[in-house]
Amino acid sequence: MNIDMIEAAAERLSGHARQTPLLSSPFLDDIAGRRVFVKPECLQHTGSFKFRGGWSALSALDPETRSRGVIAFSSGNHAQGVAYAAQQHGVPAVIVMPSDAPKLKIDNTRALGAEVVLYDRTTEDRDALGAALAEDRGLVLIKPFDDPQVIAGQGTAGLEIAQQASVYGVEQAEVLIPCGGGGLTSGVALALEKYAPEMVVRPCEPEGFDDVKRSIASGHIERNPRLSGSICDAIITPQPGDLTFPIMQRLCGSGIAVSDTDCLRAMALAFLRLKIVIEPGGAAALAAALFHRDEIEGATVIAIASGGNVDPAMFIQALQDHA
Amino acid sequence: MNIDMIEAAAERLSGHARQTPLLSSPFLDDIAGRRVFVKPECLQHTGSFKFRGGWSALSALDPETRSRGVIAFSSGNHAQGVAYAAQQHGVPAVIVMPSDAPKLKIDNTRALGAEVVLYDRTTEDRDALGAALAEDRGLVLIKPFDDPQVIAGQGTAGLEIAQQASVYGVEQAEVLIPCGGGGLTSGVALALEKYAPEMVVRPCEPEGFDDVKRSIASGHIERNPRLSGSICDAIITPQPGDLTFPIMQRLCGSGIAVSDTDCLRAMALAFLRLKIVIEPGGAAALAAALFHRDEIEGATVIAIASGGNVDPAMFIQALQDHA
Repeated sequence: MNIDMIEAAAERLSGHARQTPLLSSPFLDDIAGRRVFVKPECLQHTGSFKFRGGWSALSALDPETRSRGVIAFSSGNHAQGVAYAAQQHGVPAVIVMPSDAPKLKIDNTRALGAEVVLYDRTTEDRDALGAALAEDRGLVLIKPFDDPQVIAGQGTAGLEIAQQASVYGVEQAEVLIPCGGGGLTSGVALALEKYAPEMVVRPCEPEGFDDVKRSIASGHIERNPRLSGSICDAIITPQPGDLTFPIMQRLCGSGIAVSDTDCLRAMALAFLRLKIVIEPGGAAALAAALFHRDEIEGATVIAIASGGNVDPAMFIQALQDHA
Repeated sequence: MNIDMIEAAAERLSGHARQTPLLSSPFLDDIAGRRVFVKPECLQHTGSFKFRGGWSALSALDPETRSRGVIAFSSGNHAQGVAYAAQQHGVPAVIVMPSDAPKLKIDNTRALGAEVVLYDRTTEDRDALGAALAEDRGLVLIKPFDDPQVIAGQGTAGLEIAQQASVYGVEQAEVLIPCGGGGLTSGVALALEKYAPEMVVRPCEPEGFDDVKRSIASGHIERNPRLSGSICDAIITPQPGDLTFPIMQRLCGSGIAVSDTDCLRAMALAFLRLKIVIEPGGAAALAAALFHRDEIEGATVIAIASGGNVDPAMFIQALQDHA
């Protein structure tokens, strides 16, 4: 896993992934007490950065292998990213989802051309089911974060940040990233190591689910005590990845943990000031930039808004309570 | 008023206005029955395309004149665009607003550095008040649409459309634009006349306030019978401009009138599928693309989402009723 793979992924993504802009607002600068740039990956295809990793992984396969199709386990953003990347490559995608996943997510994944296989969380073994499907049909498993080509794809967002920030004369910044398994965080950190070495990546997580923050602090992979109880579903994972953790430990600054309420407030401010839609987990970094200013150093912060796939009811709650 | 002025405005705006991307979603393509691109000017500084015209007009003034400051009449997007452009130029801006304008808009305009002068709609003469202020202080009036440099600034969005669409191999398209006084519509039409001559601009207006549609049809400037009664406040104007109308008549296809409900539905779909926030008037073109497909020709439509300055309550209504 190295910068060359990220640069190669960027070439494969060119003309397919969107180059998301850097947004800003003087109103957000005032709240944060420093200059704030937001990179809205919610505007990426399928509404999250996950399309980058999905496309990177699909496009890196040899054509014959790829033609048999891919499989992924996900009820969320990874599912849609892989499904759409497969559809655009003209190859089959099987997405294994729990049967109690929201109907809208199942419908959306199907509408993006994927075959959705449902399993019963209480009685069926997801991994065994997936392995059997992959074996039968010769499908390639696309993991959500602990895969070099997925990390490389997510890292292309870092190449864009380095290039876009330099247009504004920004060389030094803390780069805040919503962090689940660490695919986006580690990929961006690797990209910035080469192209913006004075920037420091800070992983942002929900309070109570700060496995990456604790792992970086202790130097060992730490697990979350539980996997439910936050609205930031997109970035709740059991523990950092075996591939992503060493990269994060080497390159990242300390993590920042934010509350669900911080995320809802950040969603409302992004609505008011940037005119973008962010989901709770995707707002963790902006929440840190705005409401944890004492934990941040320097004149400039760059926050990735990693996804925007939020149910209307949750978004309405954010606006009613905080806009 | 010609293409050279638009190109000169683009040079002055470079590095100051945002180049907004072209967004798309296969879900919107399905609804529209053709390929749909959306240019989200809601992501422009101050949340609407008006910053382009404001910057263009400010930057075209000779420095000594500019240093005395500018004045504008507006309670909406033009106010914020001019205020921020003046602040960034380091010169004073006076914005004349009705005293019953929403407090949030008054506060926002002040926060962008402008001096807000309130007048009583029932007892005071706005134009006389403004003329006296301009005379006393040597301020230059920045009109909302019927000014060559304002039209030139708005036209820079058209230069971007031509360039961005060509990346996708799109030469032919109907370009749908939310239309009030016609500054954006005429500016974009002039830009496309040179750089994408196979594209046709179609002005989009609220039903009952389709003065531009009727003016193009009759060949004369027609007025709206009333100026209230639509949620699309950003694009309600008495009649097309003396400068903008001849350009629109020469270059535009027929207008499209959309209902308030169409706009709310388009806002909800932009939330779900594009993750952007559009105000009702700013959604008129997307509404036409999605719900007036029989009035549109060709394989591709490009809709400008012209602004995103919507009150949370209105946005919540769109989501509750249509998401």
